[in-house]
Amino acid sequence: MDQQLELAGFYRRVRQKTEALCKPLCIEDFGLQSMPDASPSKWHLAHTTWFFETLVLEKSLAGYQSFCSGFRVLFNSYYNTIGPQWARSERGLLSRPTVEEVFAYRQHVDLAILGFLSEELPAQCKRLIALGLHHEQQHQELLLMDLKHAFARNPLRPEYAKPDQIGLGTLPGRQNWIAISGGVFGFGHQGAGFCFDNEEPRHEALVADFEIADRMVTNLDYIEFINDGGYQRPEYWLSDGWAMAQADNWKSPLYWQPEEGGFSQFTLHGYQAVEPDAPVSHVSYYEADAFASWSRARLPSEYEWELATERSGSKGALMDDDQFQPRGLASNSVKGKVHQLLGDLWEWTRSPYTAYPNYTSHPGPIGEYNGKFMCNQMVLRGGSFATSECHIRTTYRNFFPPHSRWMFSGIRLARNVE
Amino acid sequence: MDQQLELAGFYRRVRQKTEALCKPLCIEDFGLQSMPDASPSKWHLAHTTWFFETLVLEKSLAGYQSFCSGFRVLFNSYYNTIGPQWARSERGLLSRPTVEEVFAYRQHVDLAILGFLSEELPAQCKRLIALGLHHEQQHQELLLMDLKHAFARNPLRPEYAKPDQIGLGTLPGRQNWIAISGGVFGFGHQGAGFCFDNEEPRHEALVADFEIADRMVTNLDYIEFINDGGYQRPEYWLSDGWAMAQADNWKSPLYWQPEEGGFSQFTLHGYQAVEPDAPVSHVSYYEADAFASWSRARLPSEYEWELATERSGSKGALMDDDQFQPRGLASNSVKGKVHQLLGDLWEWTRSPYTAYPNYTSHPGPIGEYNGKFMCNQMVLRGGSFATSECHIRTTYRNFFPPHSRWMFSGIRLARNVE
Amino acid sequence: MDQQLELAGFYRRVRQKTEALCKPLCIEDFGLQSMPDASPSKWHLAHTTWFFETLVLEKSLAGYQSFCSGFRVLFNSYYNTIGPQWARSERGLLSRPTVEEVFAYRQHVDLAILGFLSEELPAQCKRLIALGLHHEQQHQELLLMDLKHAFARNPLRPEYAKPDQIGLGTLPGRQNWIAISGGVFGFGHQGAGFCFDNEEPRHEALVADFEIADRMVTNLDYIEFINDGGYQRPEYWLSDGWAMAQADNWKSPLYWQPEEGGFSQFTLHGYQAVEPDAPVSHVSYYEADAFASWSRARLPSEYEWELATERSGSKGALMDDDQFQPRGLASNSVKGKVHQLLGDLWEWTRSPYTAYPNYTSHPGPIGEYNGKFMCNQMVLRGGSFATSECHIRTTYRNFFPPHSRWMFSGIRLARNVE
Amino acid sequence: MDQQLELAGFYRRVRQKTEALCKPLCIEDFGLQSMPDASPSKWHLAHTTWFFETLVLEKSLAGYQSFCSGFRVLFNSYYNTIGPQWARSERGLLSRPTVEEVFAYRQHVDLAILGFLSEELPAQCKRLIALGLHHEQQHQELLLMDLKHAFARNPLRPEYAKPDQIGLGTLPGRQNWIAISGGVFGFGHQGAGFCFDNEEPRHEALVADFEIADRMVTNLDYIEFINDGGYQRPEYWLSDGWAMAQADNWKSPLYWQPEEGGFSQFTLHGYQAVEPDAPVSHVSYYEADAFASWSRARLPSEYEWELATERSGSKGALMDDDQFQPRGLASNSVKGKVHQLLGDLWEWTRSPYTAYPNYTSHPGPIGEYNGKFMCNQMVLRGGSFATSECHIRTTYRNFFPPHSRWMFSGIRLARNVE
Repeated sequence: MDQQLELAGFYRRVRQKTEALCKPLCIEDFGLQSMPDASPSKWHLAHTTWFFETLVLEKSLAGYQSFCSGFRVLFNSYYNTIGPQWARSERGLLSRPTVEEVFAYRQHVDLAILGFLSEELPAQCKRLIALGLHHEQQHQELLLMDLKHAFARNPLRPEYAKPDQIGLGTLPGRQNWIAISGGVFGFGHQGAGFCFDNEEPRHEALVADFEIADRMVTNLDYIEFINDGGYQRPEYWLSDGWAMAQADNWKSPLYWQPEEGGFSQFTLHGYQAVEPDAPVSHVSYYEADAFASWSRARLPSEYEWELATERSGSKGALMDDDQFQPRGLASNSVKGKVHQLLGDLWEWTRSPYTAYPNYTSHPGPIGEYNGKFMCNQMVLRGGSFATSECHIRTTYRNFFPPHSRWMFSGIRLARNVE
Repeated sequence: MDQQLELAGFYRRVRQKTEALCKPLCIEDFGLQSMPDASPSKWHLAHTTWFFETLVLEKSLAGYQSFCSGFRVLFNSYYNTIGPQWARSERGLLSRPTVEEVFAYRQHVDLAILGFLSEELPAQCKRLIALGLHHEQQHQELLLMDLKHAFARNPLRPEYAKPDQIGLGTLPGRQNWIAISGGVFGFGHQGAGFCFDNEEPRHEALVADFEIADRMVTNLDYIEFINDGGYQRPEYWLSDGWAMAQADNWKSPLYWQPEEGGFSQFTLHGYQAVEPDAPVSHVSYYEADAFASWSRARLPSEYEWELATERSGSKGALMDDDQFQPRGLASNSVKGKVHQLLGDLWEWTRSPYTAYPNYTSHPGPIGEYNGKFMCNQMVLRGGSFATSECHIRTTYRNFFPPHSRWMFSGIRLARNVE
Repeated sequence: MDQQLELAGFYRRVRQKTEALCKPLCIEDFGLQSMPDASPSKWHLAHTTWFFETLVLEKSLAGYQSFCSGFRVLFNSYYNTIGPQWARSERGLLSRPTVEEVFAYRQHVDLAILGFLSEELPAQCKRLIALGLHHEQQHQELLLMDLKHAFARNPLRPEYAKPDQIGLGTLPGRQNWIAISGGVFGFGHQGAGFCFDNEEPRHEALVADFEIADRMVTNLDYIEFINDGGYQRPEYWLSDGWAMAQADNWKSPLYWQPEEGGFSQFTLHGYQAVEPDAPVSHVSYYEADAFASWSRARLPSEYEWELATERSGSKGALMDDDQFQPRGLASNSVKGKVHQLLGDLWEWTRSPYTAYPNYTSHPGPIGEYNGKFMCNQMVLRGGSFATSECHIRTTYRNFFPPHSRWMFSGIRLARNVE
Repeated sequence: MDQQLELAGFYRRVRQKTEALCKPLCIEDFGLQSMPDASPSKWHLAHTTWFFETLVLEKSLAGYQSFCSGFRVLFNSYYNTIGPQWARSERGLLSRPTVEEVFAYRQHVDLAILGFLSEELPAQCKRLIALGLHHEQQHQELLLMDLKHAFARNPLRPEYAKPDQIGLGTLPGRQNWIAISGGVFGFGHQGAGFCFDNEEPRHEALVADFEIADRMVTNLDYIEFINDGGYQRPEYWLSDGWAMAQADNWKSPLYWQPEEGGFSQFTLHGYQAVEPDAPVSHVSYYEADAFASWSRARLPSEYEWELATERSGSKGALMDDDQFQPRGLASNSVKGKVHQLLGDLWEWTRSPYTAYPNYTSHPGPIGEYNGKFMCNQMVLRGGSFATSECHIRTTYRNFFPPHSRWMFSGIRLARNVE
């Protein structure tokens, strides 16, 4: 039961955190959907609740009364095993249920789950509740990503949080290369703690010697790429990336605007100057790859990234720091270490998102959590300022399509050993 | 000044009516945009206010301080003469200004206009204020149309108004044909009262003898068309209409759903059975024309409609009746008259929307009000249950593209005299 | 039988003319389809033949063996009464039947029709054959329009005909206005000769006094509009036209290219300088209307055009002149007449294409010829250099959507009498 | 020089083979483009010639006169380093150059290359000519794929080759699993022979024990999947695959049509019954993966495929056999071997197409050959009946996007060792 007490505490903290993130919102903001890939805040609030209701309470709590039968469809994201889904691109059309009703839904489910947790539960139930909480932590980050995307479309320039100073004011020098020697090593999750199924099974793989940059790519680095014609020179780009950049007229990372003498960017703190020392963010895989080619380097594989992190990783900003953008590396950072690996920004790897050897997805709806997305996406590692510290791991595999830019994504370089 | 007092009274009534129409809404409802053609309620509230601010106060009231400079672009609908416009299809993305701010904007402008009206004003100013009020009455109807469209998309089936009994329960017999003898007659607005520029100049035209139905087409009439394969028989349809019906899989009017033994429909009172005696609504021009062909009749021209109305028109439900759908014709309606001409539903005519002979549009922004839309649209006449009585006239020309169905549109038949 | 002999002669001439128009083509050219609105030359050759086979031979010639059963679908343009149709946008995918096979198809049908015409035929058959020939004359013009569109896409710049001098080298002065007094007049076809059903019935209409330009708008006139910012000034444009011009980035008529000091244009004679004195062509209704607004004039209605032509019309180039573009007006043209009314270029009128009063379409497939297109199109009058003299009439009504530009269309101005 | 003599012989054979493949075509067929991904036969003939002209003759043969300067753009596929390209989706619009001119272009370049080869050439030139020939062999297969796609759209059902008996009439039993033991092995090309840059560098990788099917999946196997609701059960599908299957209404492999009691399919020999024993073809990666899931197996990785082929591979039909579809496995095939690995059909692997460790692309245009496509595609291995024997290798990596179906693709299963 101690473990359940702990789980109940974790439940309370995560659920409260999600609601705390909504504090700055007007009721009108909760319904915004600025593109099919993004969801309204209200939908995130309800869907994470739906997860507990549908996968835990309706399956395992005898006599549980669902809050509203229509929610089963409305807040199902993509679980075909559970049934039909309200179209993703039309989530913004749902003025009802109201925000107040969604908060009532959350309370209804919270009471049920916390009551449920006061009894001795089978391991499978506890695993599902833990999964639901990690799921909600993922949606906390999505909520911020999606809200930023929607706010950026409004010419009145709403601010999610008060203006904040980013960057530390000390320009980092050129990155240093840290050599990592290769060999056959184990990768993927091991041990008793929580992990997603895509981090398993632990397996061995052969990695060659390589070098990895001791810091992320900064805005200043990236501006050099822009100024050198990076967006006009197809020789640096993947074919699909070049086509996308032309079609959508990319000239800089998402949210940047050219200004006299530099760039400004839309942030969760409103419009700000692009700080040279902060890590560049809101780049697609295509841009990350083109930048790497221009730098005569490459992106690390996810194995290389995991190896480097285990040997020498250091942390940057995480959600526990309550800041809403990445920060530059402190000028007194220790030399010889690989900095900013966990936190600050998700780092694009060169690894397509595929199943680990001998991976099998779970039966039932939980099997749809990760496995069916193992195609057309690239792996990102390390978490961002919008990731809770208790949520991130060195084996954690995030994934997005190579053209996506609205995530809190950044770049770290690697290179071959000659 | 008496005329200005009257205008001030009209101003108060119209502005209050708009806000009264919003009473049933939750804050979340105000931002809904369910298609590019439809606008959020909040946008209607703001745009009608923008009209007074931009065309009256900023031009003619010395020292007027605009409420928020960004609104000039955000709430400009289509006036190129005034400047750039926020994209129509993205009106739903504006969570800010909030509903509260938009009501404050209305109050700010109302105070300024009513103050302005307390001084002696030039005729042009008074004409613009009157135009602004008729403009707002148009948007009252649009607000209901757009809200209905958005609510219809929500599977939770919100109701704008409490359930209401439609139909009078007395099935009308077959329509009767009223003969109208032709000749050269005057058409278009004359006299001192308000009219839109597209109703002018008064001019003569030759109309042949014709016959017109003494009532609108009912749901029962239309169901016969459906049951006779009307939506499967291209011989009744215009080519563009048939293509549209196939592409969008039309099988009935908008908002209808087949049910065991009949149809139900989404209304501003929620889902209801389709009442046989009520006039059929939410049909496109294509459907109206196909129904007429199937009936071995045709739609009236706008001249025919105007002539019949002047000779023999009777009224149906108007906004002043505070009901939110058309009603069936009373069984004791006088024979020999042409009923339901004003009110109930806008009636499709066979007339493309073009300029009257010798029409010229006004100079400046007001010239963009009507003239530039004189292409690709068909004229509808007579107003609907969502039109104020003081807003409709026998010479009033409404217009929509032939594929549009979300207006409160209906069908009246005419036929040639052999 | 004399009438049939004459019809047989007409048949031979029209059918030969179509094939003569194909002389300059390589086999590869016959299959080109450069947009869904345009058809391959091979398709025109086959479809015009299909018309005779399907509507005449298969219906009325006992024992007729169709050439290939698959053609019934493949070469049906839009006759739902006859059956399914091969998708319009995929006509270019049919490498088979080959060109040789299509010519064999023509010969097969020609023999049958000419044999058929050697017997005494019922009037309805003769009417259908005459209709088929006028139909084929329409397709002769379409064939040239479509081929020009396809050739214009090829950077190797194929020439349909050898370079030819256009313009007469004498710049016309400003146009003169010819006053026409109004009244109630008869419009539409009368008499025994051939006409399409949309020219009937003859009926009366009231036309006000007006003035009409004595010549078409020239390239020089139009260049003044361009140079005065015509394509950048929304105040001259219909709303739909402005949206189209922005979306498709129109800066000049179709086929024009800016060159140092002027414009060149793609013609059926290859690339040529835009001659100042030739009438401007390949303009949409939107451009014609915007030009007229900029000129403080308007387009004539189709009644006005018909009236002016009957009173005072003169001819320009027609297909019988074997030239493949319009010519400038001769400098010694008689003053006081309205020139270029028949031939040179189709003239946009301000009249939407609708049914004449008391029009009824024919029963059966022929009823689909014209009636079902009476929506979303504007009337053009007068024929072009690609219209045979025996095919054009003052009552002839051509029609195209207002955005179309690939026809041989031009502009004539009219204006109100103050 | 012996090596050059051999190269000249290879040149002649490959170039003649391409032209021999065009023997069955009518001139009209050469221009067909049925989708943006497919190119006209004429374009393949010209582009493969352009490769030699642009990359060899214009760079290295002093005084070479290019055949037509416009071809530099028209027949450039995707080489940004060389310059602009005619839009891929508009290759079908080029009726000129004619087929005859393209054959003259081929002859012009052939004479120049063969003359060039009679002198002693630097190694780089020879390497480029060899690359050009392997490039042309790839286009031979594309030419057949693209032609099949275009012919399949024609309801007259053209046949590329005379009807041919497929299948051997002996139904194979269930596949057998061949166990392969894992370890660290070398992968990728080694030795002096030709290879593409994406097969290099040779490198080591760790592969776990696995089992692989001794034959490809047959039509009979696949029909079981269909009959078991494979296309209606999302639990077997990748998310993107399921969305695609729904959007495009997939119910069977491409080119299949349901018939009473089974399926027929369009082949290069015209319509034929689907033979149970032949390997299933024209499946996307999504279908291959869904079939594997339904089979409780998976697709092999490209390393697994390469390992199995090196240990135990056997050949199926190749282009040298002059047949235009895959054949079933002979009933007397040796047990214990892995059959059909080279030839018959390309086999989908589960490996995304990425760079091998330490891969670097060549400088200049040749660097665009493979490297820039290393995203959003999956690796296929082993060649098909349309691949020449001298063109295929065990290390050969073909690649297509996961939704593509018009290639000659098939399925082989693998599974984990428990």
